Amino acid sequence: MIVTVTLNAALDVTYRIDQVHWNGVNRVQDLHRRAGGKGVNVARVLAALGHDVLVTGLAGGPTGRAVELDLTASALPHSLTPIGDDSRTTLAVTGSSGTALFNELGPRVTREELVRFLDGFAGALTGAAAVVISGSLPRGVPADFYATLAAHAADRGIPALVDADGEALRRASAGRPAIVKPNLEELARAFPADALGPESQAGLMRKAGAAAVVVSLGHDGLLAVTAEGTWRARMPYRVAGNPTGAGDAFVAGLAMGVVEGMPWPERLRLAAALGAAAVAMPVAGEIDHGTFQAVHRQINVS
Amino acid sequence: MIVTVTLNAALDVTYRIDQVHWNGVNRVQDLHRRAGGKGVNVARVLAALGHDVLVTGLAGGPTGRAVELDLTASALPHSLTPIGDDSRTTLAVTGSSGTALFNELGPRVTREELVRFLDGFAGALTGAAAVVISGSLPRGVPADFYATLAAHAADRGIPALVDADGEALRRASAGRPAIVKPNLEELARAFPADALGPESQAGLMRKAGAAAVVVSLGHDGLLAVTAEGTWRARMPYRVAGNPTGAGDAFVAGLAMGVVEGMPWPERLRLAAALGAAAVAMPVAGEIDHGTFQAVHRQINVS
Repeated sequence: MIVTVTLNAALDVTYRIDQVHWNGVNRVQDLHRRAGGKGVNVARVLAALGHDVLVTGLAGGPTGRAVELDLTASALPHSLTPIGDDSRTTLAVTGSSGTALFNELGPRVTREELVRFLDGFAGALTGAAAVVISGSLPRGVPADFYATLAAHAADRGIPALVDADGEALRRASAGRPAIVKPNLEELARAFPADALGPESQAGLMRKAGAAAVVVSLGHDGLLAVTAEGTWRARMPYRVAGNPTGAGDAFVAGLAMGVVEGMPWPERLRLAAALGAAAVAMPVAGEIDHGTFQAVHRQINVS
Repeated sequence: MIVTVTLNAALDVTYRIDQVHWNGVNRVQDLHRRAGGKGVNVARVLAALGHDVLVTGLAGGPTGRAVELDLTASALPHSLTPIGDDSRTTLAVTGSSGTALFNELGPRVTREELVRFLDGFAGALTGAAAVVISGSLPRGVPADFYATLAAHAADRGIPALVDADGEALRRASAGRPAIVKPNLEELARAFPADALGPESQAGLMRKAGAAAVVVSLGHDGLLAVTAEGTWRARMPYRVAGNPTGAGDAFVAGLAMGVVEGMPWPERLRLAAALGAAAVAMPVAGEIDHGTFQAVHRQINVS
């Protein structure tokens, strides 16, 4: 079983409207609501690939309830710790003129709620082959919380994968995660006044405790800096579509590679192909199997 | 006690964003969520004026739960019949360039749910001094349902006020309501191929069963066609602000006038002043007491 952690679980709402009146009244004819947040998307991809998953994190209020109902409807096993504040909604309004995204600030989490989450997390680790810790920290969660979670897993010999940003990313390595996965922008934010390239920055993260660092380079593939060496995976061509969720599919591939004990080149090819297959789908958490197969065999890892 | 009926209760969400990116990512810094729907707004105004109210209607899913939680937080007594579908959200995105409203289609209601609602409605009528039936019909509710509710009230000698549109308005009079309150646009929609003026159209509604018809004329005040005669209330000046919710405050004034046995001129003056006082407030269901007092004494009823 792979445990995913989504502290800032969201209800992802999409309104499709042909002609949006940005100063007027719009009737929403096509409405989609689904559980979201990066860890949830990772779990969807893993479940679609046949892996047992457990979605953990925090959920509160009516929006948290909607998240749980959708996880149940999606047959994704979940154990979300209740919080007092309402979980966040993310809204995408898609029309002929483009897509406007509205991201709510999300809940404020109390110390007591975090303690309850940690209790549940310790229980969820029993029987876990890997832990995936992804996404933003809600207000009230300390910046080193992902390091704390990764350290709990490391203490029990369970590999943790961390996909974070900002201060949470900067501190993650201290928890001795198996893999930290930033993209180029996140890496630049984590090392703000730094002229080093991604390979050196990944090296610094490894020195700080991460066993491996995999940097996603968008359409250019990825860079992995590991104890066994440094690899570069190059994509055969550019897949058109929606990059939202590509990083999550990519992380799902890395997690799968870890639990199945794949060698690094194979692991990276799987992860990069899943990322491309997610770009081909309009919704995060889904992958296009045709794209996966077409891309997978052509990825060059060196 | 005044019972209000809101079959299409909503969660009214407002996002305030300084500079909205209509094709990009927006962080929602200022977020408001509250129970809405016309009958809920009417109940808010009545409660603010010291009247006992009971909010009835339909609510389902996590959004319905959010509606109920806000009614409880607003100290508005409520008894909403549960439905299987999720209640609707209305979203207002307010930025420097104006306000975009997004109205979801809302739930589909089953026959069994309507039967359960009717049972509850019969119970709620016990001890009711008046019933206010407002707003749109969710899918699955027959167009004559407001007439049915008004007839139940009439059978028990309880005055019903109906604020509806389209087919529901056209049919409402058959339920012998005490007052039907269309605005000019609603009246035009109810009598589409008709060259008659509002006074004659109101007369037709009276012939069809309504005891009185009060037509709101927006900034021009109102017109009342009743068994005791025809009145015209004229506003002293135009109040600037947000007309959303003005009709609901207006209906609250009419209901108050009915239960307190006010003569028509006094009743109309109260209703028109409350409507103006609602325009002065940014949010539906609230009234500005200063505006109320300033306008109230200057309204001319003839």
